[in-house]
Amino acid sequence: MTRKFIAAAAQLGPIARDEPRASAVARMQKLLIEAHRRGAELVVFPELALTTFFPRWLIEDEAELDSFYETEMPNAEVQPLFDTARELGVGFYLGYAEIAYENGQKRRFNTSIMVDKSGQIIGKYRKIHLPGHPEYEDWRPFQHLEKRYFEHGNLGFGVFDGFGGKLGMCLCNDRRWPETFRVLGLRGAELVMLGYNTPVHYPLAPEHDHLQDFHNHLSMQAGAYANGCWVIGTAKAGREEGCDLIGGTCIIAPTGEIIAKTQGFGDELAMAEIDLDRCRELRENVFNFALHREPDDYRDICAG
Amino acid sequence: MTRKFIAAAAQLGPIARDEPRASAVARMQKLLIEAHRRGAELVVFPELALTTFFPRWLIEDEAELDSFYETEMPNAEVQPLFDTARELGVGFYLGYAEIAYENGQKRRFNTSIMVDKSGQIIGKYRKIHLPGHPEYEDWRPFQHLEKRYFEHGNLGFGVFDGFGGKLGMCLCNDRRWPETFRVLGLRGAELVMLGYNTPVHYPLAPEHDHLQDFHNHLSMQAGAYANGCWVIGTAKAGREEGCDLIGGTCIIAPTGEIIAKTQGFGDELAMAEIDLDRCRELRENVFNFALHREPDDYRDICAG
Repeated sequence: MTRKFIAAAAQLGPIARDEPRASAVARMQKLLIEAHRRGAELVVFPELALTTFFPRWLIEDEAELDSFYETEMPNAEVQPLFDTARELGVGFYLGYAEIAYENGQKRRFNTSIMVDKSGQIIGKYRKIHLPGHPEYEDWRPFQHLEKRYFEHGNLGFGVFDGFGGKLGMCLCNDRRWPETFRVLGLRGAELVMLGYNTPVHYPLAPEHDHLQDFHNHLSMQAGAYANGCWVIGTAKAGREEGCDLIGGTCIIAPTGEIIAKTQGFGDELAMAEIDLDRCRELRENVFNFALHREPDDYRDICAG
Repeated sequence: MTRKFIAAAAQLGPIARDEPRASAVARMQKLLIEAHRRGAELVVFPELALTTFFPRWLIEDEAELDSFYETEMPNAEVQPLFDTARELGVGFYLGYAEIAYENGQKRRFNTSIMVDKSGQIIGKYRKIHLPGHPEYEDWRPFQHLEKRYFEHGNLGFGVFDGFGGKLGMCLCNDRRWPETFRVLGLRGAELVMLGYNTPVHYPLAPEHDHLQDFHNHLSMQAGAYANGCWVIGTAKAGREEGCDLIGGTCIIAPTGEIIAKTQGFGDELAMAEIDLDRCRELRENVFNFALHREPDDYRDICAG
């Protein structure tokens, strides 16, 4: 069985607050069709790809807040994307806000799914590293209320069988934490997919605004290299409701090299051939975990 | 108390197999004096800075092998470096091979020490991530017998008080493992010092030889950024006994930016002003560990 395939990182430009899901879905269908035309078997969409990045506002009306979440996946509005992907035989990663009812409790997660070429959901992840703050802070030019609108993901860092290998997922801020890639790597991930919505302006340390692209790539490249895995990172980019989001969507080889990257801030593909067997170049050598890791010296990392 | 000082990364060019310690020490004294002239209060020398990188040979004669190790520190041959440093009021980091007698056992470590401005050793580290292989392998153009000549360091990742802050140490291959920087970061390190001897040619994956500098910087920059700490990485560089070693000695800010770097492969300084307070820009914000880490999800990292 071949372990090579062409993948696309399908960056989205901004999604307006009042833009219907049908519009976002149509934009993603168009990107998926184009990716397929160029040979892709796997397409990675951004985090919260169906709506605007709503944690930038305090939304106190529950019905209004709920309008940004999905209660089923797929649902009627997203079904056309699933249908097109299945018809073309293209798998995909998709991020969205999820309301789940567990033990009678209404729970909110920042979620991603992995869909195989037959349209089946083969993996689900709920974001673990939620950035931002839980309460409204009036000094900020925009809010980042992920700690208010989402619970800590309760599914762990999952690795799933697909595309002839082991695939992992994470979301946005997760990529800044080396632990994310390491846990996925230890569980065998050969490709990590992630979507992000990253403002250029970081109100807590605005002196670092000019470094956002560097930090985005540094984190993902280091995660790829130190675990000998592929990384596909996909942005929602551009000026969304007055807030500038970085682009920099890219595909990173297990060596840490960026081998494909978008050029702009709109709907755009970055494409590359993925060979999952290349992970061995690292994982059987410098990062042979069994030979070279020293877990007894890492205890502080897991102490809580 | 000021938390700003000027530091120097003091790269060494090659040290020949028959080069006496007096020569290596004299070269380091010269660098230290020049660093002091340019304002440095701290100088970081390489790993195994007193001798050639002897793990590239199989050495079966115990007396010959012992000749590359120190049994005391300082000792008569290294004392001139300690004296010069104390006279000038300059602290330093130094790597060397150590023979220690513990419970009547002769033990061998790849060691570094931290010396304060008064010439006192204020910290010792013994390398934890030993690369290479324990047995002679005749297919290799040169050996990398660190797993034969050194035991796993038994002092953990220590962080020591000095220069108005918290200082950590590691050595060479340690820098490729994000766990190294994270454990040091969790223990409060604001500056991590490390020396390295890194061949350009990696016999197990020679297709990555052209990436050695990239991987060196990627690992250190990611370690600095993800922990909001300064990193000073110092090479033994150049063609040593027929083996090319990378240079790339540098000083990295807590943002992950390289702010000073050597230009060549010989004895050379890279210098910068360190402000330990800059760590707060990261550690109180995006990498506020107390607010944002999720240790319960990291258990696999410490299992073993």
